[in-house]
Amino acid sequence: MIRIGIAGYGNIGRGVEKAVAANPDMTLTLLLTRRDPASLHPATPGVEVRSMDEAAACKDKVDVLILCGGSATDLPVQGPAMASLFHTVDSFDNHSIIPQYLASMDGAAKKGGKLSLISVGWDPGLFSTLRVLSGAALPNGADYTFWGTGVSQGHSDAIRRVPGVAAGIQYTVPIDSAMEAVRSGGQPAFTAREKHKRVCYVVAEEDADQEAIRHAIVTMPAYFADYDTEVHFITRDELSKNHAKMPHGGFVFRSGSTGENKHLIEFSLKLESNPEFTGSVLAAGARAVYRMAQSGRTGAMTFIDVPPVLLHPLDREQVIASLV
Amino acid sequence: MIRIGIAGYGNIGRGVEKAVAANPDMTLTLLLTRRDPASLHPATPGVEVRSMDEAAACKDKVDVLILCGGSATDLPVQGPAMASLFHTVDSFDNHSIIPQYLASMDGAAKKGGKLSLISVGWDPGLFSTLRVLSGAALPNGADYTFWGTGVSQGHSDAIRRVPGVAAGIQYTVPIDSAMEAVRSGGQPAFTAREKHKRVCYVVAEEDADQEAIRHAIVTMPAYFADYDTEVHFITRDELSKNHAKMPHGGFVFRSGSTGENKHLIEFSLKLESNPEFTGSVLAAGARAVYRMAQSGRTGAMTFIDVPPVLLHPLDREQVIASLV
Repeated sequence: MIRIGIAGYGNIGRGVEKAVAANPDMTLTLLLTRRDPASLHPATPGVEVRSMDEAAACKDKVDVLILCGGSATDLPVQGPAMASLFHTVDSFDNHSIIPQYLASMDGAAKKGGKLSLISVGWDPGLFSTLRVLSGAALPNGADYTFWGTGVSQGHSDAIRRVPGVAAGIQYTVPIDSAMEAVRSGGQPAFTAREKHKRVCYVVAEEDADQEAIRHAIVTMPAYFADYDTEVHFITRDELSKNHAKMPHGGFVFRSGSTGENKHLIEFSLKLESNPEFTGSVLAAGARAVYRMAQSGRTGAMTFIDVPPVLLHPLDREQVIASLV
Repeated sequence: MIRIGIAGYGNIGRGVEKAVAANPDMTLTLLLTRRDPASLHPATPGVEVRSMDEAAACKDKVDVLILCGGSATDLPVQGPAMASLFHTVDSFDNHSIIPQYLASMDGAAKKGGKLSLISVGWDPGLFSTLRVLSGAALPNGADYTFWGTGVSQGHSDAIRRVPGVAAGIQYTVPIDSAMEAVRSGGQPAFTAREKHKRVCYVVAEEDADQEAIRHAIVTMPAYFADYDTEVHFITRDELSKNHAKMPHGGFVFRSGSTGENKHLIEFSLKLESNPEFTGSVLAAGARAVYRMAQSGRTGAMTFIDVPPVLLHPLDREQVIASLV
């Protein structure tokens, strides 16, 4: 049994907890939290709950620690701190600074003689692997990644910061006609507006000016101004009744050619729960880390560095006989 | 530059030749053939053409030899013979005996201090990796692989052995309603007949009994009896005009769940030329073999044992910065 620890008991942490329960070769032994440990009531019976500050004292209680903090402020600090104490897996998803985070994790993990796998999940993660595999298979071609339909936490947070907004949620929606243009075998160039639209459901405060809210949202730089954005005002009841789930998904395409012949590679995910699916991929990543650490690997790596067979619950011989 | 050799100059061999030309880090230096070397006129200028019997004398002329023989009779003999002389890649696709072929290649490669990568292409190959990745991401779920629309050489050969048939081709066609049932989130069980149909285009010999041909085809055990099979009689002109390409493709699905939430993973390929795409994946496999051999790896492995990053033309730092 691989002994798993979870650092951070938010949406992703609870997703990992469910995934560990669903994998027969894993057991959850430790939960680290920044909150008062007594305030946590994990679903797993018997799991030890400790303060994040006591991590060093818990280093022999787990084989792999899954870091479930956020990428903006938690992981840049927690990641290297934990990587020198534990073999770790995380879902660091700030794409633009992955090389820097990798270097920082690599240094910390090597210092502790540990192994860290970063940026695991679906994007980065499965989508990264698909972009790499399809680029290798079709060196002459173009990549397209579409996201959605799904909830973007960053854009939902941006809505909620608009004056007069009591609550809200934002769905990123891929535009069908753009995906069909790719599927038809071309290699079109798209603006941001041509690939995705943004659909917002907003609960306004009483007496708020809805038109002012709408204008503030659709003109917001970086988040909405470059997209066609729909703003729908709904009641708090409708929000909690119809928008409580965290679905997501997306598409990776590569459209390319060999000689005179065209080829299309398409990968897609339709996920009813983004944090639960991410948690499930993190659990598979923890298994690969456990196996690689047993063979003496140290330092930090990304999902595309991992031989796929090491992620699977079956052993190599069984996978080769049944899935290759 | 990675010096590539090709053993066997049929459809796959010519596909590999095009792929090597499209990859700027590779050069084709050697062609091994069982035919008279003087009878071959490769598209690549300056490539050395030698008899397969002279392979041992050519072992320093290439970094990786790509084996392009057939899986039925060529590779079981050629594979181990070449694996002790060269680092190799092949597209061995007899799924049921991959473990035995792997063991035989592993022994030969280790004896020669070489590295062999077997069963590279799209199925086995990319589809194998997708089955492994999606099974790891969703341990509670069901796999579905559909093939087509595309030409099956084995079924086309079977048609051509029927008395009265002058020429013919068979397309494997996945059944849309079955794929939609998977996409809708269920985990249905299918018979062979419910997943694929078989569409045959047959040129009959003059005065042949078309109804007898049709009956012989649709009742043929193993190949057609378990499927709904259409037989269309066409002229030799129509065959060469409309059926000269070798398109193929297919779909890998995993439909699964975490807790109460359902998730769907879908991967698909639409290929205008099966041998050219297979050749292109083989070339990427050769790059990975070259890189792994440089770090001292020997023995035999499958596509799912390869870290994806090693397949890509860019180096690791560039891939991590641009594709993860």
